[in-house]
Amino acid sequence: MADATARSVGEFGLIARVIDRLAGSPQVLLGPGDDAAVVAAPDGRVVATIDVLVEGVHFRRDWSTAYDVGRKAAAASLADVAAMGARGTALLVGLASPPDLPVAWSLELTDGLRDEAKLVGAPVVGGDVVRSETLVISVTALGDLEGREPVTRAGAQAGDVVVLAGELGRSAAGLGLLEAGAREGALVDAHRRPTPPYAMGPVLAIAGATSMCDVSDGLVADVGHIARASNVHVDLDAADELFLTGGEDHALVATLPADTALPAGVRVVGRVTAGDAVVTVAGQPAAGGWDHFA
Amino acid sequence: MADATARSVGEFGLIARVIDRLAGSPQVLLGPGDDAAVVAAPDGRVVATIDVLVEGVHFRRDWSTAYDVGRKAAAASLADVAAMGARGTALLVGLASPPDLPVAWSLELTDGLRDEAKLVGAPVVGGDVVRSETLVISVTALGDLEGREPVTRAGAQAGDVVVLAGELGRSAAGLGLLEAGAREGALVDAHRRPTPPYAMGPVLAIAGATSMCDVSDGLVADVGHIARASNVHVDLDAADELFLTGGEDHALVATLPADTALPAGVRVVGRVTAGDAVVTVAGQPAAGGWDHFA
Repeated sequence: MADATARSVGEFGLIARVIDRLAGSPQVLLGPGDDAAVVAAPDGRVVATIDVLVEGVHFRRDWSTAYDVGRKAAAASLADVAAMGARGTALLVGLASPPDLPVAWSLELTDGLRDEAKLVGAPVVGGDVVRSETLVISVTALGDLEGREPVTRAGAQAGDVVVLAGELGRSAAGLGLLEAGAREGALVDAHRRPTPPYAMGPVLAIAGATSMCDVSDGLVADVGHIARASNVHVDLDAADELFLTGGEDHALVATLPADTALPAGVRVVGRVTAGDAVVTVAGQPAAGGWDHFA
Repeated sequence: MADATARSVGEFGLIARVIDRLAGSPQVLLGPGDDAAVVAAPDGRVVATIDVLVEGVHFRRDWSTAYDVGRKAAAASLADVAAMGARGTALLVGLASPPDLPVAWSLELTDGLRDEAKLVGAPVVGGDVVRSETLVISVTALGDLEGREPVTRAGAQAGDVVVLAGELGRSAAGLGLLEAGAREGALVDAHRRPTPPYAMGPVLAIAGATSMCDVSDGLVADVGHIARASNVHVDLDAADELFLTGGEDHALVATLPADTALPAGVRVVGRVTAGDAVVTVAGQPAAGGWDHFA
């Protein structure tokens, strides 16, 4: 079976093998294998987000293992849940796969999804497997606000400080190294497998964050979402270009009232002021970020 | 702007235009435009399922309008929610799109998704838009069990009757006509835009369904899921081949205790007996159904 493919084991053979790799959890009331899953939503609300990863755009099979792609795909969605101040509870995964994709690749992808989701206690509860020329992975993450209000992008106030949890620029640096031929090292690994600070989402919400956002497109671009949604000006501290514009690290950026005692693990990277809803860096106009169709 | 493409308006331009087409609903506590949506889950549980549609596999742009593809994509996931006995509450949509896809196509797709979801009161609450050589649409549907237990595939009992809500064989007949060159007619439309009997999911649950399944791969194949999950034998009544093996109509098949007063709109199509977990048709071995990699 070492050379089995999606075509050779068939749709239902592949699904059965994937489900065998998964595990349950108390909040999963009905897991994979039926028409739909049933997941607990203890406070009567559910946080939900979807992210799509495409081979050649978000990952390359010659640069990343299937396991790393699974970790990265789960991280992209789970970071969005954390950015609302919520805790992830479940993942659903859609896999559009070339017929000749080795079954081993799909199973290692499953292991990566499962292990990343395990970091927050959010098992894979459902999925779909279909045929496609292009390898596309869709991950929906569900989450629990634990009774708190969601932290949106729209609540930043003049006078707030801008704070960061997690790393920035490392994924972009790793991508540059991969493009230059490197295949090993901490930065390369940071690109293959980002490490979002999931626990800091709820921590920042409890600390009183007025707005929060996952940094997936670059700090300037994602703080720009906060500036526009909150109709405030944001001035970021001077920093190197990769820190300001590198995407895919999935750090969390938030705004806090200036008199807030900073939680451990966050640092101030800018300030919110009244004014036009734009982002500046040390008072100078800033640009940058990732557009999928540019 | 009539010839605008994803590339010409950019990722965020496309997202803004899509969000403009959408509407809210009381159960949507936070709609599109943030890192994640927040949806009410009134009984403390959420039903969740994902389906993926791929151009050239599930639809052709020269056979179906973008609006029809949106209707069909939403229907596939919402029928899975209905098959649990639940009511749809929200959709999340991932669109992997070639850069030259006309913006008008994406917006008509959005309209189709929105209008199909409106049939059950489940607005589009979130999504993702990325670049891909192959056009792939992932739809996650969420649902509300309204305090009931989910109806799984695993509860069928010897002595139950097998009942059907909705049409079968029409989508497959329409596909055959499209392949033969037809471009109009009721069967062609049934393939382009299935009409699942959403309301019958909760109705069958309330009537005491012991198992239920959406017919997406063909009646024999999907009743086979019930037979295996419930470890029962199912004998279907004799019928024509398209009725028994045609997929994508998204009818609902369920089992009910034989003394149940049949709800309006359902008919008996077979019986559950003790015995090997296989499906027969009028006592004869049956085969058929769709495998994505066969």
